[in-house]
Amino acid sequence: MKIENPNPIQWQFSERAQQLQSSAIREILKITQRPEIISFAGGLPSPATFPVERMKAAYDKVLSETGKQALQYGPTDGYAPLREWIAAYLSTPDCKILPEQILMVSGSQQALDLLGKVLIDEGSKVLVETPSYLGALQAFSVYRPDFHSVETDDHGLVPSSLEALAEGARLLYALPNFQNPTGRSLSIERRRELVETCARLGIPLIEDDPYGALSYKGEPMPRMLNMNPDGVIYMGSFSKVLTPGIRLGYVCAPLPLVRRLELAKQAADLHTAQLTQMVVHEVVKDGFLQEHIPTIRSLYANQCQVMLDAMDEHFPEGVTWTRPEGGMFIWVDLPKHIDATALLDQAIAARVAFVPGAPFYANDPATNTLRLSFVTVPPERIQEGIAVLGKLIKDQL
Amino acid sequence: MKIENPNPIQWQFSERAQQLQSSAIREILKITQRPEIISFAGGLPSPATFPVERMKAAYDKVLSETGKQALQYGPTDGYAPLREWIAAYLSTPDCKILPEQILMVSGSQQALDLLGKVLIDEGSKVLVETPSYLGALQAFSVYRPDFHSVETDDHGLVPSSLEALAEGARLLYALPNFQNPTGRSLSIERRRELVETCARLGIPLIEDDPYGALSYKGEPMPRMLNMNPDGVIYMGSFSKVLTPGIRLGYVCAPLPLVRRLELAKQAADLHTAQLTQMVVHEVVKDGFLQEHIPTIRSLYANQCQVMLDAMDEHFPEGVTWTRPEGGMFIWVDLPKHIDATALLDQAIAARVAFVPGAPFYANDPATNTLRLSFVTVPPERIQEGIAVLGKLIKDQL
Repeated sequence: MKIENPNPIQWQFSERAQQLQSSAIREILKITQRPEIISFAGGLPSPATFPVERMKAAYDKVLSETGKQALQYGPTDGYAPLREWIAAYLSTPDCKILPEQILMVSGSQQALDLLGKVLIDEGSKVLVETPSYLGALQAFSVYRPDFHSVETDDHGLVPSSLEALAEGARLLYALPNFQNPTGRSLSIERRRELVETCARLGIPLIEDDPYGALSYKGEPMPRMLNMNPDGVIYMGSFSKVLTPGIRLGYVCAPLPLVRRLELAKQAADLHTAQLTQMVVHEVVKDGFLQEHIPTIRSLYANQCQVMLDAMDEHFPEGVTWTRPEGGMFIWVDLPKHIDATALLDQAIAARVAFVPGAPFYANDPATNTLRLSFVTVPPERIQEGIAVLGKLIKDQL
Repeated sequence: MKIENPNPIQWQFSERAQQLQSSAIREILKITQRPEIISFAGGLPSPATFPVERMKAAYDKVLSETGKQALQYGPTDGYAPLREWIAAYLSTPDCKILPEQILMVSGSQQALDLLGKVLIDEGSKVLVETPSYLGALQAFSVYRPDFHSVETDDHGLVPSSLEALAEGARLLYALPNFQNPTGRSLSIERRRELVETCARLGIPLIEDDPYGALSYKGEPMPRMLNMNPDGVIYMGSFSKVLTPGIRLGYVCAPLPLVRRLELAKQAADLHTAQLTQMVVHEVVKDGFLQEHIPTIRSLYANQCQVMLDAMDEHFPEGVTWTRPEGGMFIWVDLPKHIDATALLDQAIAARVAFVPGAPFYANDPATNTLRLSFVTVPPERIQEGIAVLGKLIKDQL
């Protein structure tokens, strides 16, 4: 049935598509999936934390009791009982969040894409942390903004530095809890100052919070959302507290914005799977996360400590790193002359992997930085891998 | 914890977001979900066709045997065994499709969004049928193309009319089987002519095919993909042959394009749920669709015939309609002076709903057209609703 001698198509991609690049992490992950590699590269939650039996029981219950509804098309904004649950979860005594403010999305990466679509024109000024989350830079880049990096110190983003960058800024994107990639958290005082500064300057503040519940001390920090629900856009996810493979997250935004995001989502993929939302509601509605999250925290806290101890033992002077109190990542500063990308090649040859820090910078990458994840690899392999890395770094000095 | 006297944000949406509109269908669906309404509006597959028990068994099996993998992050291009299954399904003796050409997406609406993102710049010339699928117009509109409507007659798209529109066209979007909204299908001769014309003119041809398997005669028409796999982009879906609520579709495209789509998908939502893909693979791998699809066909064929018979009985002279041989929709042409949107208001007051045809036109809407779906409502209610509609139309004459 084939036609004869067709002309080959001369593909003409859109301008935005011409500059699409694969995430450095996803490319590294392809290399490092070989089982002999000790990989500190991925941000993959430990499968040991996945509540498989609980999920299985919920799929069985939802399909048995409401299978036809679960398998039918659903509303774009999401499954109402789950949105109600999330609104209650996000509410505080002096700040009630409405279910109408919640839009369910297919993982919080989709929230980033929708926010970019709705808020960013070509050349729009977009403020990000230094460094910032790679997936956000990638999602926003599609809409061709002009990124400006906000000053950051050992305690995270510096609110007073915003003033000089404020004019015409479309948004500020921040990850206040155990930031990806640095593991840093903003203090309560800085949160307050940041929220006040953004409100005063009229800058919408995006609070991306996948790791907030993973505080090793068990006391999550207050959300910026609840300090100013009219100016803060909050992004949450079930990926780090339940499982990532089901692709379920949410965004909470002021009503004019969330309705616009809903329209963008309708055009992008109609809605997120009903079945997934009903199953997650079934799993979380009776307080399961309150018993489950502490088990994740203690697993990760232990592995974090193992890695920090190993770094203390094996990393030479002149190397510094963060000491996170939650989340999944440690950030390493090498002596200025060491290039982390070159180091990665040597590390992979020695069967250890990490992610170089440069791709996390929107401007002026610091090539002597790298990110280590301590959650996917078990303790004895963490010690082994850090010893190898320490030796490679020493060889460079 | 709230801050005091925050300034209200002056939301500045992107230019693309300012013109986002909700789909007319989704708005009508909100009204027509009341159980007393006989709704011919939705394109919702009949829940009677959902293989709930089969799906439940597959979820149980996948979670029991490979739960940790199913719940972990997965590759952007999709679950390899399912991509292999789809490639084999799409292959013909003289046209082998490779798994590398398949990108899994979260429902084929997402394929439309990704294709728009990668192929359309502001002002790009985009060719569509007259009328065309509303969801595609909505997805592409985000990227602000210049739509040109290709001439269509009772046998669907007229290939010879392409020549005059070809210059600078970025793509042609077509739905060759039981088109949404008209129910029309392209003959084999027209398919061939269309593929040859697009190849000669260098226009990428998008073949959107959610309904191809729902041919009441049981003999699906040949895919245009297999006539020229280097120039045709094929979109498939599990929504109409399995269930829509799981949100699973795929796109098959030449390698340079599919890799670019994969990058766009990575930025948009990382990947489609692994669990969903593994479950669908489990359901389809042993030939289940071959036994299941005929049951959908016979249900829909019967309901289509019931609706056509009722229309013959109740619709007055001067009204014409299509007689589809598959799919889910009948398209109605009213006398020119009857406005289908005004008719809808009366119909809803009389507890019957449909979708006016105007939103399906990219240019020059025919306001005297409407779309009827015969798949969601059972036969006796179809007869009742058509009788009501017939009376309302007669009253207008």
